[in-house]
Amino acid sequence: MKNYILQNENAVYFECGYSCDNVIFISISGDNYFITDARYEIEAKLMAKNCEVIITNDLIEQSKKILQKSNIKKISFDPSDFSLFTYEKLKDELKLQFVQKPNFSKEKRLIKTDKEIELIRSAMKLGRKGFKRFANYLKTDGLNQSEKYLFFKAKEFMSNMGELELSFDPIVAIKENSAKPHALPTSKLLQKNDFLLVDAGVKYERYCSDRTCCTSIHNDMTFKREQKFKNKLEQKIYDIVLKSQHTAISKARVGMRASQIDKLARDVIEKAGYGKYFIHSTGHGVGLDIHEYPNINSRSDIIIENNMVFTIEPGIYLNDKFGVRIEDTLVMKKGKAEIL
Amino acid sequence: MKNYILQNENAVYFECGYSCDNVIFISISGDNYFITDARYEIEAKLMAKNCEVIITNDLIEQSKKILQKSNIKKISFDPSDFSLFTYEKLKDELKLQFVQKPNFSKEKRLIKTDKEIELIRSAMKLGRKGFKRFANYLKTDGLNQSEKYLFFKAKEFMSNMGELELSFDPIVAIKENSAKPHALPTSKLLQKNDFLLVDAGVKYERYCSDRTCCTSIHNDMTFKREQKFKNKLEQKIYDIVLKSQHTAISKARVGMRASQIDKLARDVIEKAGYGKYFIHSTGHGVGLDIHEYPNINSRSDIIIENNMVFTIEPGIYLNDKFGVRIEDTLVMKKGKAEIL
Repeated sequence: MKNYILQNENAVYFECGYSCDNVIFISISGDNYFITDARYEIEAKLMAKNCEVIITNDLIEQSKKILQKSNIKKISFDPSDFSLFTYEKLKDELKLQFVQKPNFSKEKRLIKTDKEIELIRSAMKLGRKGFKRFANYLKTDGLNQSEKYLFFKAKEFMSNMGELELSFDPIVAIKENSAKPHALPTSKLLQKNDFLLVDAGVKYERYCSDRTCCTSIHNDMTFKREQKFKNKLEQKIYDIVLKSQHTAISKARVGMRASQIDKLARDVIEKAGYGKYFIHSTGHGVGLDIHEYPNINSRSDIIIENNMVFTIEPGIYLNDKFGVRIEDTLVMKKGKAEIL
Repeated sequence: MKNYILQNENAVYFECGYSCDNVIFISISGDNYFITDARYEIEAKLMAKNCEVIITNDLIEQSKKILQKSNIKKISFDPSDFSLFTYEKLKDELKLQFVQKPNFSKEKRLIKTDKEIELIRSAMKLGRKGFKRFANYLKTDGLNQSEKYLFFKAKEFMSNMGELELSFDPIVAIKENSAKPHALPTSKLLQKNDFLLVDAGVKYERYCSDRTCCTSIHNDMTFKREQKFKNKLEQKIYDIVLKSQHTAISKARVGMRASQIDKLARDVIEKAGYGKYFIHSTGHGVGLDIHEYPNINSRSDIIIENNMVFTIEPGIYLNDKFGVRIEDTLVMKKGKAEIL
């Protein structure tokens, strides 16, 4: 694609190694323009690579001038990246065809470079450290704390006291609340032996990690994959989900369709009789965005290749009881999946 | 406006007292529809008032069905509220005119009800408590901490350990860094007598507070308006900005244009010889959004009325030295401005 225009923060970062929350990025036959306002001038000029930084108080007008001057006939853009308002202002009076290319930046970012994979690996490592800090806290001081407070503490430990950005607001869900895949923290208090689900990630140089762990609260608790639950149903469901995740990870191969990886995970849960309680996709790509390509679901016929990075996260949700989800972020290397 | 469609979270909340991050809201001759997915079913049915909650996994298709069935000829929407992608999918194959009404929800929310004013008053009160907790922390443990860590602690104290949502990420800026109106926290360490700017707010029942204070770090420091600085230039600039803010607050009257309030604040700073260092607007409306109507700037000819809520926040920014901004959130009552 020779000519394109972008404003999504992560899409712009991918183009030039810098971004901010008020930018339009234009690429015309390899000449790149980073258009922003005065607040970001110093950082942009220092950090944005292979592009001319243009400071203005009217990003749209400035973009139109550049487009007009370029004499190009067509420019590509993602229709989800621009509001109708911005789009109409942008194209008004320009003799230029705007060509819709849905998700073109996500498509560009589908196969990661080795450098990107190392950044995600670092984010996963920092994320695991956060989980460890949180586990140590839960063991010593977590009892009788509310989900809301534990949510706050999870952010503290995951971010290492504000040092790291989070990939998303963590999910910290006790028992029944873990049965909702998007649980919001309540006033419910944590008790000994309670089932607990934690879904959290951090960023390293803007690249995300993503991981979900389940455990129960006792003196030796950890967020490792091997878990012992006193409650037999919890143990049974946990073991099914673990087997499902393990199966998908160990059997995933380059050349498969994404839907086949979904099926590897789903089959285990269906055979165990819990198919209808696995209510979401098996996984999603991870990179600058916490959700990017490839989608790992039953309808996704994308062919898996080396250097794709995605989660595998099967789950079983028993309403009013508890929900188990086990999630790791993986990279395809030498034909197989490797946990990051 | 008889028929309209919305998806902005705060705009939807204003309509029915509930919202979530995946919703389309349609109003047709007073019949309201809250269209969302299964994750939000329980909360939406419990909390969304005067509307039918419709659960679907395709919000756009469901919206089209409702629009089609209604037999209306026109529907209003805000072109900033919909991406081009959503807009085109929505209107595709519908025999219905989509009428652009930019910012119509913000216009509806311009004059606050007494109940809304009380919610913002409560948010401001909780915000002041947060500033107090942060001041006490700074006095005892703030020295030699980095801006980044202080930023983290500001979030902790403002949110009261995660109990309250923040209106926005606070700004915590030491000395030179305060000269940037949108400073990002650095590794710079806080020293005794350092100039410090803090801009922060919290939410109460989704309504925002907004306040900026400047101080210097010593044993008796507070975030009150009366400030003593050892550095004479700091004191001089602080006093000019304080006079500017005080003048605008005490002289603002119902019936004025917003630009006249801007001028009240700007004149004081210009007369003192620092006009070119006051590089932003005097204020902005506050409500469900942290930035809403009325804008208080030199181009805003909106007429100020009772029950409008907005900030007055003049500032002087001396590059490489420091920046002073003093901000309160006010309500117009009985013709005059009252600090909330």
